[in-house]
Amino acid sequence: MNAQPPKSDAPTFDEIRRILRALPAPDQEAVTKVVARQVELTKPPGSLGRLEDLAEWLAGWQGRAQPKVERPRVAVFAGSHGVARRGVSAYPPEVTGQMVQNFLKGGAAINQLAGAIDADLRIYELDLEHPVADFTEGPAMDEARAANAMAYGMMAAEPGIDVLCLGEMGIGNTTAASTLCAALFGGTGADWAGPGTGVQGAALQRKIATIDAGLARHRDLVEKKDALGLLAAVGGEEFAAIAGAVLAARMGRIPVLLDGFACTAAAAVLYALDRRALAHCLVAHRSAEPGHTRLLEAIGQKPLLDFGMRLGEASAAALAVPLLKAAAACHNGMATFAEAGVSSKDG
Amino acid sequence: MNAQPPKSDAPTFDEIRRILRALPAPDQEAVTKVVARQVELTKPPGSLGRLEDLAEWLAGWQGRAQPKVERPRVAVFAGSHGVARRGVSAYPPEVTGQMVQNFLKGGAAINQLAGAIDADLRIYELDLEHPVADFTEGPAMDEARAANAMAYGMMAAEPGIDVLCLGEMGIGNTTAASTLCAALFGGTGADWAGPGTGVQGAALQRKIATIDAGLARHRDLVEKKDALGLLAAVGGEEFAAIAGAVLAARMGRIPVLLDGFACTAAAAVLYALDRRALAHCLVAHRSAEPGHTRLLEAIGQKPLLDFGMRLGEASAAALAVPLLKAAAACHNGMATFAEAGVSSKDG
Repeated sequence: MNAQPPKSDAPTFDEIRRILRALPAPDQEAVTKVVARQVELTKPPGSLGRLEDLAEWLAGWQGRAQPKVERPRVAVFAGSHGVARRGVSAYPPEVTGQMVQNFLKGGAAINQLAGAIDADLRIYELDLEHPVADFTEGPAMDEARAANAMAYGMMAAEPGIDVLCLGEMGIGNTTAASTLCAALFGGTGADWAGPGTGVQGAALQRKIATIDAGLARHRDLVEKKDALGLLAAVGGEEFAAIAGAVLAARMGRIPVLLDGFACTAAAAVLYALDRRALAHCLVAHRSAEPGHTRLLEAIGQKPLLDFGMRLGEASAAALAVPLLKAAAACHNGMATFAEAGVSSKDG
Repeated sequence: MNAQPPKSDAPTFDEIRRILRALPAPDQEAVTKVVARQVELTKPPGSLGRLEDLAEWLAGWQGRAQPKVERPRVAVFAGSHGVARRGVSAYPPEVTGQMVQNFLKGGAAINQLAGAIDADLRIYELDLEHPVADFTEGPAMDEARAANAMAYGMMAAEPGIDVLCLGEMGIGNTTAASTLCAALFGGTGADWAGPGTGVQGAALQRKIATIDAGLARHRDLVEKKDALGLLAAVGGEEFAAIAGAVLAARMGRIPVLLDGFACTAAAAVLYALDRRALAHCLVAHRSAEPGHTRLLEAIGQKPLLDFGMRLGEASAAALAVPLLKAAAACHNGMATFAEAGVSSKDG
């Protein structure tokens, strides 16, 4: 667990777009082997349901017919938001930094959840002392700052990790996520805003107005469908870092579990650029934040869990890791009908 | 992991009914402490969603404010069914015993899933060489055999276990489960029958006809709403054992995870006798078997997972254990706002 300063040898947006044009596909040989083995295992065909799909997905993206979930990493990116000063959250902006300290001291939900799965937990603190600008007044970041944050996020996808759980912390960031989703997939503030940390009434109206003001301010980028431009314009840095981590994981053959609304919104920037960009990602959980369900439909993802959580911090991503472990364990460890001497359906 | 012969000092049905009239309630003091602590922990109130409910449920039924999930047991009961000879399954009746051997040798899905959660796996083999009678021709069992099987199941709820995962194996037992559900909650064979191990067409029609024949044969018990009588009349022994295990777990303060359709149907016999009888049980997963959704509605349970599984063997119950572990870890391990120096919502 660490908090590190951003690095500076970042790719430009043009370089990011070039990477996106050369995304690796799943390993078809591994997938074919998994599918062939599934029908031999001592169970009615298909009776392990989504566990069978998960084994196939893990194998395809890890590039091996015997998928492993032995070295999960949980990466939490924390960023601070200019719009947090507009009273769009139930908590003051200082809570972002306070929660980072809580992560580093081991007191947050994600510490317990990462511990329960024996994961390597990393906290990536983006420039919290210098929040990105209020996106209703201008771009949250320039391209260089956004690209720098993407490069920082890429560091999370280190070789040797077999699953990467992504999450975020940032007071105000469901406002940014809602704005980004509306910009990428259409709709208004009212369509995408939700309670976040727990706002309602006048605060929720402020949140909706902030989203709509952001959409109006950056209408040119919305009309140009400039997804990376919108990521910079709306922020935050933690979203750029998550997008970078997703991209680096793809290049490094590491399957990804996305957490809740804000994390999925960050990854959805890549989906808007290329519909294949999130094929190596699964959404761990359907957030209680209503915008998440709308977003899941937009990007065609079916979450693994539906537990009414809305915390972020990669909490739901970590919670879903044992489901992947179970899928790999069944696939690799079960006996075949022939090995076990069990009569098969056709036999 | 073991396979044991049934024991014989079984309670009578009247004694079972007496136990049901004196079911222990959850520990309200533990629940109150959990609820009070939840709002102090460093997260927006309610943001861990169902994990918070699970911590409360575990605490209430374990009778301690710091719930533990350190010693899970997985108990699989195998029974054989006279109706299996009617061609209601995609597999021959011999597969029940062959799968028990597969369990004992470690080759089945449940071996991998129990291993992944470091659970104590027990296989309880009921009198497989002597299938219960075909319930379309008469009662599957007499009261003594059913009560004996219940007593056998009770042994699974040993002191020291902190969660009990229940499941079953028995070729033909979705036919018995469907019949039992129709008898307890109304409806016909067509309402409750599903593919089970994978039957369709003529075999599915035979299955439906078998269920309807069973309902007609035991109409007097249906009309008398004699749930224990129906358990004996329809079978199988593994269902009686599961009902016994559920009851013993309640007396022993052990929360229970129920597996899929057949397992839930067995437990539902107790629900039909007393609506509070399954309060210490959660259904781990919504089975792909369509009758399960109907049954979940009848007994008011919302499953933890929805993974399209339909294997049985306690597979989904074992898969859900890490969700309980995560709930306990968050509840016990998180810092409070005061401990972490994080500004709370009201602060």
